[in-house]
Amino acid sequence: MRQDVHLGHASRLINHGPTVLVGSAHGGRRNLMAAAWSMPVEFTPPRIAIVIDKKTFTKELVTASGGLAVSIPGRALLDATYAVGSVSGREVGDKFTRFGIESFDGPVLGLPFAADAVAWMECRLIHEPHTEEAYDTCFAEVVWAAADARVFDHGRWSFRDDNTDLHTLHHLGGGNFAWPQRTEQARPLKPST
Amino acid sequence: MRQDVHLGHASRLINHGPTVLVGSAHGGRRNLMAAAWSMPVEFTPPRIAIVIDKKTFTKELVTASGGLAVSIPGRALLDATYAVGSVSGREVGDKFTRFGIESFDGPVLGLPFAADAVAWMECRLIHEPHTEEAYDTCFAEVVWAAADARVFDHGRWSFRDDNTDLHTLHHLGGGNFAWPQRTEQARPLKPST
Repeated sequence: MRQDVHLGHASRLINHGPTVLVGSAHGGRRNLMAAAWSMPVEFTPPRIAIVIDKKTFTKELVTASGGLAVSIPGRALLDATYAVGSVSGREVGDKFTRFGIESFDGPVLGLPFAADAVAWMECRLIHEPHTEEAYDTCFAEVVWAAADARVFDHGRWSFRDDNTDLHTLHHLGGGNFAWPQRTEQARPLKPST
Repeated sequence: MRQDVHLGHASRLINHGPTVLVGSAHGGRRNLMAAAWSMPVEFTPPRIAIVIDKKTFTKELVTASGGLAVSIPGRALLDATYAVGSVSGREVGDKFTRFGIESFDGPVLGLPFAADAVAWMECRLIHEPHTEEAYDTCFAEVVWAAADARVFDHGRWSFRDDNTDLHTLHHLGGGNFAWPQRTEQARPLKPST
């Protein structure tokens, strides 16, 4: 059900603050970690900021390859998301293999995504040594995006009762995740004065 | 029901990606805008990154005062959140007054919060001219935090069926917001190899 997402709509994929998975690869090694801290920073070109601890194996691979594969997991990957966020690939090796997470390689940079996620953004790292050092904050440009059409279509998430397994995960801490079962449309507010 | 939050837990307030309201004030003028794009970047000291368009009235006031008051709205502020995100304070004047949004001033910097939100973080801007210019991304340190104890207690959000009006808002685009009615605890995942 993977459908390309127009790059002008890429920011929508993480606009509502889901936890994401960061796939990375370089020199025959690859890794997958969870990141609760990411956000869009620009619509066009689509750019994001994401916090990747400078000491992690992921950061080492991202820096070496110059890119990252951001998968947005749905509820079906709840346990996997927490698992890959709890151990280091330096210690346990390839986390895709270790935890039985299916992967595919991105079409532009060839970086590894979680196939059973509900959306995907392949990103090229923008070299910003100061913010990477001071705040572990990496900036990146989205070069390809796709989503599962059952839950993201026409540039918009559609969280419904008939697709709850595909709803995004929002980490509250300690492995407890919220998921957005309900949505609501804001109404125009009349000025009170 | 406002209860101080230990600064070591401040990152938890936005860990799950809610849309926030940015209060600002300087020289007798004040403003309130919505921001879907923010994230923690560090636990201790608690620091956040937040995207504030450099052309906005909010950015002008934040730069002048050196601080911002981040309110985290719950569902009760759904329409207000969308309203303050849709017009500029340069054109409509004080948006607290215009839209009948109750306010209080933060205890450290005296900046204006939305009183009916469910959590609050007073932040001191960290001067980072390059990222503000290149990515509209501001870094700030949280100097005071509080939350409504009915929905955030002991350093953790507690979204339940009996407090749905206090659940946070997550902007999907176009005034459509998701809210995290359900939470789920991840279970340890056994290695598959």
